[in-house]
Amino acid sequence: MPDPIYLDYNATTPVAPEVVEAALPALRDLWGNPSSTHVYGRRAARALGRSRSQVASLLGCDADEVVFTSGGTESDNAAIIGVAEALAERGRHVVTCSIEHPAVERSCAYLENRGWRVTRVGVDSNGRVDPASVASALTPDTTLVTIMHANNETGVIQPIREIAALTRPRGVVLHTDAAQSVGKLAVRVDDLGADLLTIVGHKLYAPKGVGALYIRRGTPFAGFLHGADHEGGRRSGTEGTPLIVALGAACALANRERNERTVHLRAMRDRLESALRAKLPDLIVHGGDAERLPNTLSVALPGVHANRLLDRLEGVATAAGAACHAGAAAPSGVLQAMGVPAALALCTLRLTTGRPTTVDEVDEAAAEISREALTLR
Amino acid sequence: MPDPIYLDYNATTPVAPEVVEAALPALRDLWGNPSSTHVYGRRAARALGRSRSQVASLLGCDADEVVFTSGGTESDNAAIIGVAEALAERGRHVVTCSIEHPAVERSCAYLENRGWRVTRVGVDSNGRVDPASVASALTPDTTLVTIMHANNETGVIQPIREIAALTRPRGVVLHTDAAQSVGKLAVRVDDLGADLLTIVGHKLYAPKGVGALYIRRGTPFAGFLHGADHEGGRRSGTEGTPLIVALGAACALANRERNERTVHLRAMRDRLESALRAKLPDLIVHGGDAERLPNTLSVALPGVHANRLLDRLEGVATAAGAACHAGAAAPSGVLQAMGVPAALALCTLRLTTGRPTTVDEVDEAAAEISREALTLR
Repeated sequence: MPDPIYLDYNATTPVAPEVVEAALPALRDLWGNPSSTHVYGRRAARALGRSRSQVASLLGCDADEVVFTSGGTESDNAAIIGVAEALAERGRHVVTCSIEHPAVERSCAYLENRGWRVTRVGVDSNGRVDPASVASALTPDTTLVTIMHANNETGVIQPIREIAALTRPRGVVLHTDAAQSVGKLAVRVDDLGADLLTIVGHKLYAPKGVGALYIRRGTPFAGFLHGADHEGGRRSGTEGTPLIVALGAACALANRERNERTVHLRAMRDRLESALRAKLPDLIVHGGDAERLPNTLSVALPGVHANRLLDRLEGVATAAGAACHAGAAAPSGVLQAMGVPAALALCTLRLTTGRPTTVDEVDEAAAEISREALTLR
Repeated sequence: MPDPIYLDYNATTPVAPEVVEAALPALRDLWGNPSSTHVYGRRAARALGRSRSQVASLLGCDADEVVFTSGGTESDNAAIIGVAEALAERGRHVVTCSIEHPAVERSCAYLENRGWRVTRVGVDSNGRVDPASVASALTPDTTLVTIMHANNETGVIQPIREIAALTRPRGVVLHTDAAQSVGKLAVRVDDLGADLLTIVGHKLYAPKGVGALYIRRGTPFAGFLHGADHEGGRRSGTEGTPLIVALGAACALANRERNERTVHLRAMRDRLESALRAKLPDLIVHGGDAERLPNTLSVALPGVHANRLLDRLEGVATAAGAACHAGAAAPSGVLQAMGVPAALALCTLRLTTGRPTTVDEVDEAAAEISREALTLR
């Protein structure tokens, strides 16, 4: 049996062939310790520098504002705990929202257990944070606001620029988890106004195990991993050269394809939605009235239990709810926060297109999904 | 000009060809999110399981006692902060020693800044911790002892088993940073009696950016990276499959070569020492009277400033002091803790042999080092 059609690109992406090609020589030859002063070390250090510039170029920042990490969870932990601890003397209040990834939510909860106050603003029925609710949450004690750029389940994009307009004049630091948006649409730190921004390799065709954290110059930051002062003292640990080189190559690829990739992702997603709607006219697109990622279709098929549907899909690999919660029978917390009834949330598929997605894949997948859904009804 | 002879294996190792071969298919094909329930996810999850067993087999523990991390710094931070926080109610005293790697020392300093008391026991002139000094440092408040297995600069091995005999009956948790010893000699957690043990990929022919932490079943541990509960809730973050597969392959390789590798490393190191001594009879081997790693030669050449010597060595890549402190002009803190005079410490080279080291390399390197040292004198 051939491999099923992959429509789970928000869970993870394959490593792009161009990225594998870049990672290979790094794995084989660039093994020197970048801290060593001999030629083996200098070669590795040069490769790190190149990669840092590639990431910076995609985000529109300076290379020295990029810190390499082991992935999104570390970037989020470092951003939230690192800023909160650096500003603990000034205040101990953090504002976040009710639909964050666990890496953000649990980092906030960690601070809460240590005496910080955390305000979680809600979202509207489209899954969107109202900047006014962030404004009302700010107090003189607030040091950090952390709101995701795009939601992993619905793809709904948050008004980060409007939130930055609130935090900046108050000297409140703004972090955004852009794990899902970088590589799918143009994300420039100055357009968003974020002070810290999380980027994740395996969501943009680099391997798992690497990410980055943008830290705007001058942002108070306590550091997170403690050790021999790598990454300008912001993140210790010998740099993972091969994966960092891969991340740089993935960012360069995203930068080259930029608008073209966005257009392709959207065309495939919209074709999938139309094909499904033709057979299942009562489907409901979560966040359908909000600005969304071009590749994400969170769709409820009323009366069709998503897990039972997934069990029947032999030719399509996709998800019901976020991959991190795979196996859990509880309805998605994101959808619940949007006021979606539990019964409907349990009938929700997350279909996400990628760079390699083709028209044929979309058509085949839509045919199988609608056929099996109708059988289940 | 050909590449210089590499004698800096304690700074980092090349990736073994066998490990590159294992990592390649993982990079290309095992890109699924191990949390996904579809076939792409299950394939990746199976590869993780295999790697976990390979690491466990090398250490002599159960697979579920192995937690994958991004490297030694993260493993050390997680072990020290994770245990200290889990036991904060019981007591806030940690015992370490004066020659730890910065990842351990700075993690202890982090706790110190947050109200813990830290005792740093000294070392003797051979760089060895006296178990009696650990015994005297223990108080009813002590929850954690963290002492390295083998020192990165001198290779001196610490009496972990004897220390475990002190901590175990008192219910004190024992962590050891085995970054330098795993893969150079047989390290079995039950022989050592450690409750947590740090392992680092790039010190044993796996790539940079991956490591593991052994956590003995039942050890209190608060977790370190907060998120979607990967690794049994002990370390969140999507698992870095390609590098984890590489780490497993490197552990399997070390397991296969075991004693044979140790014998080779020692033969090359001892040949290097003899060849140098023949030309420079007044050389001083630091820790020479202690049990040491088989590959490490920390050697002072009186009257020969190590950095000036390194500048002249065109055919040998090696280090003066630890790689992490590369560029620093200050004498090594490890040597100072051993009572080595600063002037002699500044005349110290760290020469470390590896799996690929050959007799010809050793002979050529010894000839160039002694020739240039004599010229400098």
